Amino acid sequence: MTVRRLLVIGGDAAGMGTATQARRLDPDLEIVVAEQGRFTSYSACGIPYVVGGEVASIEDLVVKTPGELRAKHRIDVRIRHEVVALDLDLRQAEVRDLERERTIRLPFDQLAFGTGARPIRPDLPGIDEPWVRGVQNLEDGAALLDHAQRSRCRDVIIAGAGYIGLEMAEAFHRRGARVTLVEAGDHVMGRTLDADLASRLSDALAELGVKVRLGERVESFDKGKVVTANGALPADLVVLGLGVEPNADLAAEAGLELGARGAIQVDRRQQTSAEGVYAAGDCADTFDLIARRRIHIALGTVANRTARVAGMNIGGRYSTFPGVVGTAVTKVCSTEVGRTGLTESQAADAGFESVSATIDSTVRSGYLPDAEPITVKLVAERRTGRLLGGQIVGGPGAAKRVDVLATALYAGLSAADLVDVDLSYAPPFSPVWDPVQAAARQVLGHI
Amino acid sequence: MTVRRLLVIGGDAAGMGTATQARRLDPDLEIVVAEQGRFTSYSACGIPYVVGGEVASIEDLVVKTPGELRAKHRIDVRIRHEVVALDLDLRQAEVRDLERERTIRLPFDQLAFGTGARPIRPDLPGIDEPWVRGVQNLEDGAALLDHAQRSRCRDVIIAGAGYIGLEMAEAFHRRGARVTLVEAGDHVMGRTLDADLASRLSDALAELGVKVRLGERVESFDKGKVVTANGALPADLVVLGLGVEPNADLAAEAGLELGARGAIQVDRRQQTSAEGVYAAGDCADTFDLIARRRIHIALGTVANRTARVAGMNIGGRYSTFPGVVGTAVTKVCSTEVGRTGLTESQAADAGFESVSATIDSTVRSGYLPDAEPITVKLVAERRTGRLLGGQIVGGPGAAKRVDVLATALYAGLSAADLVDVDLSYAPPFSPVWDPVQAAARQVLGHI
Repeated sequence: MTVRRLLVIGGDAAGMGTATQARRLDPDLEIVVAEQGRFTSYSACGIPYVVGGEVASIEDLVVKTPGELRAKHRIDVRIRHEVVALDLDLRQAEVRDLERERTIRLPFDQLAFGTGARPIRPDLPGIDEPWVRGVQNLEDGAALLDHAQRSRCRDVIIAGAGYIGLEMAEAFHRRGARVTLVEAGDHVMGRTLDADLASRLSDALAELGVKVRLGERVESFDKGKVVTANGALPADLVVLGLGVEPNADLAAEAGLELGARGAIQVDRRQQTSAEGVYAAGDCADTFDLIARRRIHIALGTVANRTARVAGMNIGGRYSTFPGVVGTAVTKVCSTEVGRTGLTESQAADAGFESVSATIDSTVRSGYLPDAEPITVKLVAERRTGRLLGGQIVGGPGAAKRVDVLATALYAGLSAADLVDVDLSYAPPFSPVWDPVQAAARQVLGHI
Repeated sequence: MTVRRLLVIGGDAAGMGTATQARRLDPDLEIVVAEQGRFTSYSACGIPYVVGGEVASIEDLVVKTPGELRAKHRIDVRIRHEVVALDLDLRQAEVRDLERERTIRLPFDQLAFGTGARPIRPDLPGIDEPWVRGVQNLEDGAALLDHAQRSRCRDVIIAGAGYIGLEMAEAFHRRGARVTLVEAGDHVMGRTLDADLASRLSDALAELGVKVRLGERVESFDKGKVVTANGALPADLVVLGLGVEPNADLAAEAGLELGARGAIQVDRRQQTSAEGVYAAGDCADTFDLIARRRIHIALGTVANRTARVAGMNIGGRYSTFPGVVGTAVTKVCSTEVGRTGLTESQAADAGFESVSATIDSTVRSGYLPDAEPITVKLVAERRTGRLLGGQIVGGPGAAKRVDVLATALYAGLSAADLVDVDLSYAPPFSPVWDPVQAAARQVLGHI
């Protein structure tokens, strides 16, 4: 019997998820994972909580070490190994061993990309300074933690007010730094929230003492300061939260088709344009179930789910990934934010005529203590009432309610359906009309 | 123009919900509400939190007073008025004014029942003692609060370990009482949880110091003690949590058809067997969307939603109520419980062949502090994988996840669909595979 070999490029969620799923189904497959960095299978999403001091050490974010993966899953994990070139016809990879500084050739039968995404670093003067950092991998996390612990960061500038920006704002705020968010758009979380909901979040940031500068773009970085069109801001540290772009260069050089925003194009089985070559996670494109078009979205949940599908197909099963509705949550101290589907402006971009409603309620019955406020906005298609998206901002207990909306979107429910679902109620958990249903009732009036 | 009159019987959630919805659609309708008690439109579900001391006073549970309803909604609310007889052919009610001790005749064009449910009081020796109390209305709440505040309740016996039983157990535990739950069934929450999940809840009760006596039935009540087959238990107060039964006597006497468990039978528009006569809330039966049969279920959410449907139809619109999946939550101190759909044993009763899976996870990423445990059990139909029900027990943040399952059940999703929904994730909110999805993955393996 000939042993077949799967080569996986990238040892984080997408790569290791693919590898472990394939192993579960095919005990005879030889599996080699090449990972550039020193860590495997870690929670990059946890970095802000290490920097903020809630999690004791960077190592706590590692789910499985290379040793565990080798022992438990018989996966040959090679850290500090970079795949530098691929020949898909010959089924051969050129792999650089970064420690020993030598290059080896590795033949494979099947190939999987889990190369992830990288923070966007615009070509600005000074951007390569060591005190200007992205948040991508555990090496970045360790560097940011070092900054935070050594208190070299009394003035922290966060460029970009998206998820990473907000989470790092909280982290450094917890460390006692003066934090300023500099955002080029006209509201925070511009890609995920409409302006009206974003303003509730801005209010919460202002209350914490986090400064938010909107409509302002970072232009250069120079010895302890950040320059924008409005002048210079003092900065011991700059955190880049300007979004990410897929790591698809190697795939492109190998001749694979690229899809949305330059991500590796995949079919419903997570197979790329080449037979037996798969991609999962942040490096691949996916399908937007609401807008009905291909998109690039970088989310840990999607990485895990697409990796499972890729691994199942590699392991000989038939498995498909239907696409995403685009659900995400975050929080800044006690203010939570959740979103799913399309915002009003995204719905318009996608060609929908939509209606929306925004309601204010409380996370639990109003007569109980700690009945924190919650604001829910729903967007629905005009005439059909089909739900297109939802946004939530509120106190503890608010954001996870977005999962009800995500499930409703996945199932294609209308606002009228959502009013009819029997969601749970008891005074410590909700008002008798759950806020998401109160919003659905409201939006029904506009259809 | 002749003024038409709607008579509503009962001034709590179902009755007032019907009345206010009808008013919204029909400004010319004359609306009279007859309420036996002194309070209208209150949250009976809030009683345990007043008794436990979290809410300052019983009056805080009143959403709208009769005065507010009269002024804002032009609804003629008559408290301490009991409808004692109905002539549906003559369209006339005999109403007893309990204060002035006189009876009036009130003609009506349309009629709505919102008479609710009453605690089951088995015919046992001593059950009418004043220290043996049900939890039904605010008068009960006031009496229980009085007991709690005057510390006449060092030994509290709760008969029945359902929702009310558990919530009252927490309330008196908070007041420093020694609390014992006496439950005839073989596990707590017998009608809502399978034995395996219920045992997690029993463990939590034991940790609190609440005693649970299973398989034991209260038999009589006598001067400071409760007698069971196993002997006598000291008791300053007994709280009845043996379930409820619909208040449908008046409807039956008026000749209306009764449905499941003696509740008033209604159609999809909440109309009873008589034209122009509606019923909503705990007094009416409803449809179980999963078992596909008529049932009686007493839940505040269903009361509000069916009242909305009744009120819309009375107000001249077409509105239907599809039925319920049976979702509920509660908590005992920091242990939360949520459930929806059918348990394993209910699925068997309904004729399903089912598979199930139970997983243990955490409410947030395991590396964060306060990553409390959560156990999720899913029940799915064999072969099709269609979800039939779910049960959750866990720490703060656990129970409300049942709403995702409720939405999935409403939409008829399968376990495979649930794995594909993109639920939200960030370390403070969830592990990367939300526990409900981890359970869905597990159950997929058994189908």
